[in-house]
Amino acid sequence: MRVTVLGAGYMGSAIACVARRRGHEVRLWGTWLDDPMLEPCERGEPHPRLRLRLDGIALLRAPRLAEALDGAELIVHAANSEGVLPVLTRAAPHLPDVPVLSVTKGLLEAPSTRRMDRIDVVVQERLGRPVRFVHAAGPAKAMEVARGVLTWMHFAGRPENATACAQALRGDGLIVTTSEDIAGAELCSALKNAYATGLGLWDGFVGAQAHNARAACFTQALVEMRALVTAGGGTIETVYGAAGAGDLHVTAAAGRNRAFGERVGRGVAAAQVAAEMLAAGELTEGYPAIATAWRFAGERRVRSVPLLDALHAIVWQGDEVGAVLRRLSF
Amino acid sequence: MRVTVLGAGYMGSAIACVARRRGHEVRLWGTWLDDPMLEPCERGEPHPRLRLRLDGIALLRAPRLAEALDGAELIVHAANSEGVLPVLTRAAPHLPDVPVLSVTKGLLEAPSTRRMDRIDVVVQERLGRPVRFVHAAGPAKAMEVARGVLTWMHFAGRPENATACAQALRGDGLIVTTSEDIAGAELCSALKNAYATGLGLWDGFVGAQAHNARAACFTQALVEMRALVTAGGGTIETVYGAAGAGDLHVTAAAGRNRAFGERVGRGVAAAQVAAEMLAAGELTEGYPAIATAWRFAGERRVRSVPLLDALHAIVWQGDEVGAVLRRLSF
Repeated sequence: MRVTVLGAGYMGSAIACVARRRGHEVRLWGTWLDDPMLEPCERGEPHPRLRLRLDGIALLRAPRLAEALDGAELIVHAANSEGVLPVLTRAAPHLPDVPVLSVTKGLLEAPSTRRMDRIDVVVQERLGRPVRFVHAAGPAKAMEVARGVLTWMHFAGRPENATACAQALRGDGLIVTTSEDIAGAELCSALKNAYATGLGLWDGFVGAQAHNARAACFTQALVEMRALVTAGGGTIETVYGAAGAGDLHVTAAAGRNRAFGERVGRGVAAAQVAAEMLAAGELTEGYPAIATAWRFAGERRVRSVPLLDALHAIVWQGDEVGAVLRRLSF
Repeated sequence: MRVTVLGAGYMGSAIACVARRRGHEVRLWGTWLDDPMLEPCERGEPHPRLRLRLDGIALLRAPRLAEALDGAELIVHAANSEGVLPVLTRAAPHLPDVPVLSVTKGLLEAPSTRRMDRIDVVVQERLGRPVRFVHAAGPAKAMEVARGVLTWMHFAGRPENATACAQALRGDGLIVTTSEDIAGAELCSALKNAYATGLGLWDGFVGAQAHNARAACFTQALVEMRALVTAGGGTIETVYGAAGAGDLHVTAAAGRNRAFGERVGRGVAAAQVAAEMLAAGELTEGYPAIATAWRFAGERRVRSVPLLDALHAIVWQGDEVGAVLRRLSF
């Protein structure tokens, strides 16, 4: 199968490795920001983030987008939420009518409604044409996916599209389940970044001995994600599966959202932590995710989200972290 | 309110502290094994495990059981699953008709059916009389409960009993929700010890970079707990709330079950790890919990529990950990 991956960062390169290992003919296209990723790979050196060699994978720089898409039977979209519209707008004229598996997580403003909405909704509205969109959710850190560590991904989309993507990529350590609940899967992927930050706050505020508080917030996050997902048209099965509970677990256990939460929990202003992490080249998805999730909750009139309200108060309204956490109740 | 706590270990002493802080008149009775816990407290020193002074709490050694129960308006049972029948059999003649809040987690063999069953079922059968049993579930490490760290407990029992227990203990950092689903809550409490061990295996087998695998097993644990809980008469709401997902989160994040799993994951025989931990004074609830959960699954004819089967194969049948984990799929 001819698989084209758009975006040569962590996750795009990891999926390219998986696809290559499954025997596919793989092209990895880098965006105009990805030259530093591709350059070492072109010399046969390891990918600078993934720290693996991309043997047997064709590498194409940004100007070769049409060539990258020509004849593709499966497309993987792996730019981040800021890149999804610029990338797919440029790709649109060359996009074959094949499934597009998107690993991008987030919510965007829909031009028509001015409300926060799912990426597939906004993309199709902007492109003015249908896309055979499949959302890849679930607890999948790219470093581990690329190394074959047991991983459970959940692909959501129309059955024929989701199944095609699953059949192309599953195997060895990669378990792939599918469903039609694209709304639930996309919302879970976006929301878990916000809630994972909430667990990190306790590491900074109390320290390691806050297991009960983190678990209480994990439980409440599932309660609130369920309310938000059902308001957005998704199902509770998705919330309690790999896309929801599973991905929240991995995001809260480690990574940048937790690190962000921990520093904010120590009392440093969220804007300052975000700026410092950005300067250090670390993207903190949880920071904007809290704002978009909170806006989504308001727009969909989901009122009972005390944990999200608390996160928003601390991170975006400058409320004192201790005061908010001490009065937190569910 | 006059509150009597039976069992002066970690959790009994922690609940006694909470009850005292709520203004109750508290008696803490130690079993015949608890003298080393009470002795320092009687001298005004901190509780040796909890490392807190039990100020204002009446301390009663094992022979004073009748006195401890006399006039009690709420009883907290905090012996472990091995102690529950010996303690409650001795207490029975003196037991007033008040709610009994039990923090004991596990399954026991019912004398009549010879099947693994819930503690409240077995206790009432053995005592030959009804007990106003309330099961305390949820992610509550005793050290943190005693120190007022935000904690979400879930009390399950007949509404009048569960509500009485919740009203007596909730407040400050302690959130208490209630439900009538005693079957679901007890089963979650017992099962999570088994499944938490499964997450720990990956720490030993792969190391820290197994977030995806741990999250996949967390997700699958919820799937299997749901099947086992509904087979036992519980509801899925309990599985996805504090009693299930919440308690699994805290148990898998830290503690002895994880430590046990980690050493087994490195290839050490489970029986040896259990024996060494026991010799070091550490109880590994996950070790017997896997056996009882697996037996429960068989007795209730729940067939599709591949993760529990894998845990049982590794821990109780001596299968090679790498071989089992590499072929694990859901």
